[in-house]
Amino acid sequence: MDIAIPLYDRFTALDAIGPYEVLSRLPGAQVHWIGHEARPYATDRGLRVVADATLEELPHPDVVVVPGGTGTVSLLEDERLLDWIRTAHETSQWTTSVCTGSLLLGAAGMLEGLRATSHFLYLDRLATFGAQVTDQRVIEQGRIITAAGVSSGIDMALHLASRIAGETIAQAIQLVIEYDPAPPFDAGHPAKVDPEIVELVRRRARVPA
Amino acid sequence: MDIAIPLYDRFTALDAIGPYEVLSRLPGAQVHWIGHEARPYATDRGLRVVADATLEELPHPDVVVVPGGTGTVSLLEDERLLDWIRTAHETSQWTTSVCTGSLLLGAAGMLEGLRATSHFLYLDRLATFGAQVTDQRVIEQGRIITAAGVSSGIDMALHLASRIAGETIAQAIQLVIEYDPAPPFDAGHPAKVDPEIVELVRRRARVPA
Repeated sequence: MDIAIPLYDRFTALDAIGPYEVLSRLPGAQVHWIGHEARPYATDRGLRVVADATLEELPHPDVVVVPGGTGTVSLLEDERLLDWIRTAHETSQWTTSVCTGSLLLGAAGMLEGLRATSHFLYLDRLATFGAQVTDQRVIEQGRIITAAGVSSGIDMALHLASRIAGETIAQAIQLVIEYDPAPPFDAGHPAKVDPEIVELVRRRARVPA
Repeated sequence: MDIAIPLYDRFTALDAIGPYEVLSRLPGAQVHWIGHEARPYATDRGLRVVADATLEELPHPDVVVVPGGTGTVSLLEDERLLDWIRTAHETSQWTTSVCTGSLLLGAAGMLEGLRATSHFLYLDRLATFGAQVTDQRVIEQGRIITAAGVSSGIDMALHLASRIAGETIAQAIQLVIEYDPAPPFDAGHPAKVDPEIVELVRRRARVPA
């Protein structure tokens, strides 16, 4: 099973690494890191991660995971990437996104009329592509799964792992990565925190309300 | 605030990326990826991540995060790395580990008599360094924080973020990465799953019971 994760400059590391840490443990799975060029790509916070092949070297993966990041919005007219996503989706078993990665699925014309999600700051933008946006954490619609912001990719990938390989394998993967979350706060959703914190996040991300 | 994450071949990506995604968002923080050499390091599942500097170029970071991985056990007598950890800890505000990263703190002689944790498959090994092992997810002992397997680094880092910058900033970071976990199973701790799944994980990891 070939799993493709397309990289681009200013992607968000955890968007990609969360699903990778889960899906790479599926029996027979191989994760391919690809990009416009085979080179290191800088995340939106400085770390560099290496793409080993070009998009065109892997036109027909079985699973696609499109990560988000602050670089996403400058790629919404990047026809080379959008064409790759469309072509890959023609034959993929599953096409998925994390965070603003769903904007790329939307820009590729794949979310028209479907329920879908994204980072909470970008739900309005996602709606411009004809998606029925919700703030659900993981949404499966046919062969397409979209997930909410950044860390939601771990939940999405465990859901996908159980679809692909069954519950026993998915639970074994959850155990080996010891995903037994215990955050010190219950602050991971805008409805759960003080509105001032939502405003702080919105201002720092420079996304208009 | 200089945050150092030492890399080595066959580290586990999420061990490092989870804390990075949290701590890099602290006001004034800069994360430094370092290693024996400034070069890409291969994770234990193939992905390559770039270290931009050598260990010696950053002898006195404010925060140290030591990730684990299948490569850890071959470094327990690597005096260059252990010396770097000891020296960094002399002046750091916080010295932390995720997963089997705690074995390196132990090998550096820093956990003698302290409560500490690691990946559940390596708690016995951790005890050989004189630590009082527990399976608590995040354990703070003075300036040292150890965390359980792989994904626990996210919880550890949010805890640390609140120590460094206060609860409002920590909650804002939790919100921006939308860490509102919703795994499809409750299978992230060995006490929570069927014993057969624990055995499956143990066999695949090739760690004797």
